[in-house]
Amino acid sequence: MEPTLIYTHAELGPTEKSHLVDRLNGIPIVFKEELSEVECLERFQQATVAFGNVPADWLRKTEALQWLQLESAGFGEYQTVPIPDMVTITNLKGMFSVPAAETVLGGILFLHRGLNDLVVYQRQKHWVGADLRPELKLLQDQKAVIVGWGSIGKAIQHRLEAFGVEVFTMNRSSEGADLQTPEALDDLLPKMDLVIVCLPETQETIGFFDKARLSLLAEDALFVNVGRGSVVDEAALIDCLRANKLAGCVLDVTEVEPLPASSSLWNFPNVLLTQHTSGGSGNELMKKVDIFLDNLERFRKGLRLENVVDLKRGY
Amino acid sequence: MEPTLIYTHAELGPTEKSHLVDRLNGIPIVFKEELSEVECLERFQQATVAFGNVPADWLRKTEALQWLQLESAGFGEYQTVPIPDMVTITNLKGMFSVPAAETVLGGILFLHRGLNDLVVYQRQKHWVGADLRPELKLLQDQKAVIVGWGSIGKAIQHRLEAFGVEVFTMNRSSEGADLQTPEALDDLLPKMDLVIVCLPETQETIGFFDKARLSLLAEDALFVNVGRGSVVDEAALIDCLRANKLAGCVLDVTEVEPLPASSSLWNFPNVLLTQHTSGGSGNELMKKVDIFLDNLERFRKGLRLENVVDLKRGY
Repeated sequence: MEPTLIYTHAELGPTEKSHLVDRLNGIPIVFKEELSEVECLERFQQATVAFGNVPADWLRKTEALQWLQLESAGFGEYQTVPIPDMVTITNLKGMFSVPAAETVLGGILFLHRGLNDLVVYQRQKHWVGADLRPELKLLQDQKAVIVGWGSIGKAIQHRLEAFGVEVFTMNRSSEGADLQTPEALDDLLPKMDLVIVCLPETQETIGFFDKARLSLLAEDALFVNVGRGSVVDEAALIDCLRANKLAGCVLDVTEVEPLPASSSLWNFPNVLLTQHTSGGSGNELMKKVDIFLDNLERFRKGLRLENVVDLKRGY
Repeated sequence: MEPTLIYTHAELGPTEKSHLVDRLNGIPIVFKEELSEVECLERFQQATVAFGNVPADWLRKTEALQWLQLESAGFGEYQTVPIPDMVTITNLKGMFSVPAAETVLGGILFLHRGLNDLVVYQRQKHWVGADLRPELKLLQDQKAVIVGWGSIGKAIQHRLEAFGVEVFTMNRSSEGADLQTPEALDDLLPKMDLVIVCLPETQETIGFFDKARLSLLAEDALFVNVGRGSVVDEAALIDCLRANKLAGCVLDVTEVEPLPASSSLWNFPNVLLTQHTSGGSGNELMKKVDIFLDNLERFRKGLRLENVVDLKRGY
């Protein structure tokens, strides 16, 4: 079916915009940044297709909308509003898995191989050299558990295994995973060198890494969160770091983003904050447009869309 | 043959020392740090076995020495002194390959994934978030050449391939390598995203990456040196960095070590100096002792020693 109007909420550069417009064969399209705030909502209500993460409460006010293509993999904010039956929501599942895995591996090696210290010494023009070597850890022969074994977790697993890491996977709904229950995870946690969280935000995952579960981690373990900040009790995590009950953290996500300047997470030399950049890469915007265009082709032909999200299940 | 005396030049901790002494079944052993400077040379001259990197000119003065076990993989400093025929020199080839590969991957991802910028923002408690994402590069689908394809190069190759990097290898004396000649390398260099140097120091490798060869690199290429500093014309490399003719460098080695505070290499935000730590790891000293003990067992049984170095060939 031909869309009557496409409303674009995604912020695109001029190159991506003209690439997008070129492929539409004249379908009308409007862009958020060319409209006033009031006009945005008006045009969204007239559109049959929308592209980008519109405010969740706009979904209470849809009139013509049939399909919303998100520009993220996560969609937790849309789970608390009623979605009209005629609206299909699709996400960008998978698009961020390779970039995220690369940042996660980079972050782990940053801490293991003393790059956090070397960066400080470089600023001081201080050659410490051989004295640092006994402090360095190796990934090889370590054990890791990946909690939330979706496309990001699988991309991380593949890379860790090339480093000689023994990887355990947890996914409550996947039989291929090594672990399916929180109880099985809790048994394993004390033996892990790396605990890597890739959980989406759902009713069940919020606060999953609470104080009790965090207390199961070994004191020389590294904790990585590339899922959602709400999955971890951040105050409890900070307590662990203060008490030296963790070797370090790589956090792509935090409970509040942007992280307030008052947060003590900024201060730990053994915490790397990657500021929700892990999914990013140079051609990210163009990739988003291409995924939208592929799905638009399906929409026009009446085919089933790719990456339809299950709002109830939450992933 | 039973050694009459073992002279230990390697600096060991108390744990490694007692581990070593325990395994000797009473063979006399002396440790550098328990002797005066004069005594060191005297005892070295009495020893049939020495462990550790003694000053190269001591090899002009050997009397009883039959075997010198180095505590490094490199041995360039011993190539310029005449080695008596009765002396066998062994090195620690292979021991540093996994640690070095982990640091190299960490260093590359540090620059690709913007961790160099994120570390600065973290110090400033400044959340830049999504604005950084278009700056980030992916290893996936990049092309790398590994120049000097020994045990370190192979460990790097295996890990890069898991990231989806297409790896080319160069080794003048290995038929399994993709490239054997400098001419073939020069043809390839302009197309490479990553140029990773693992060359040892030999008469042929000194200055191999001179101004002309460095000028062949693409402007968005990353240059990594985990071999020896003398292999690269450092002044020419600095010129490339100043002129933005390189995306960045990961340098484990430099022409002079420690790197003088006056070197401008300290100042580039796109240069990571890992200060010759890449081969290091927490259990490094104990591993060295175990490799020495294994070889000592062979020496006592009159078997061929492991990792005998070819001083002429240089590796």
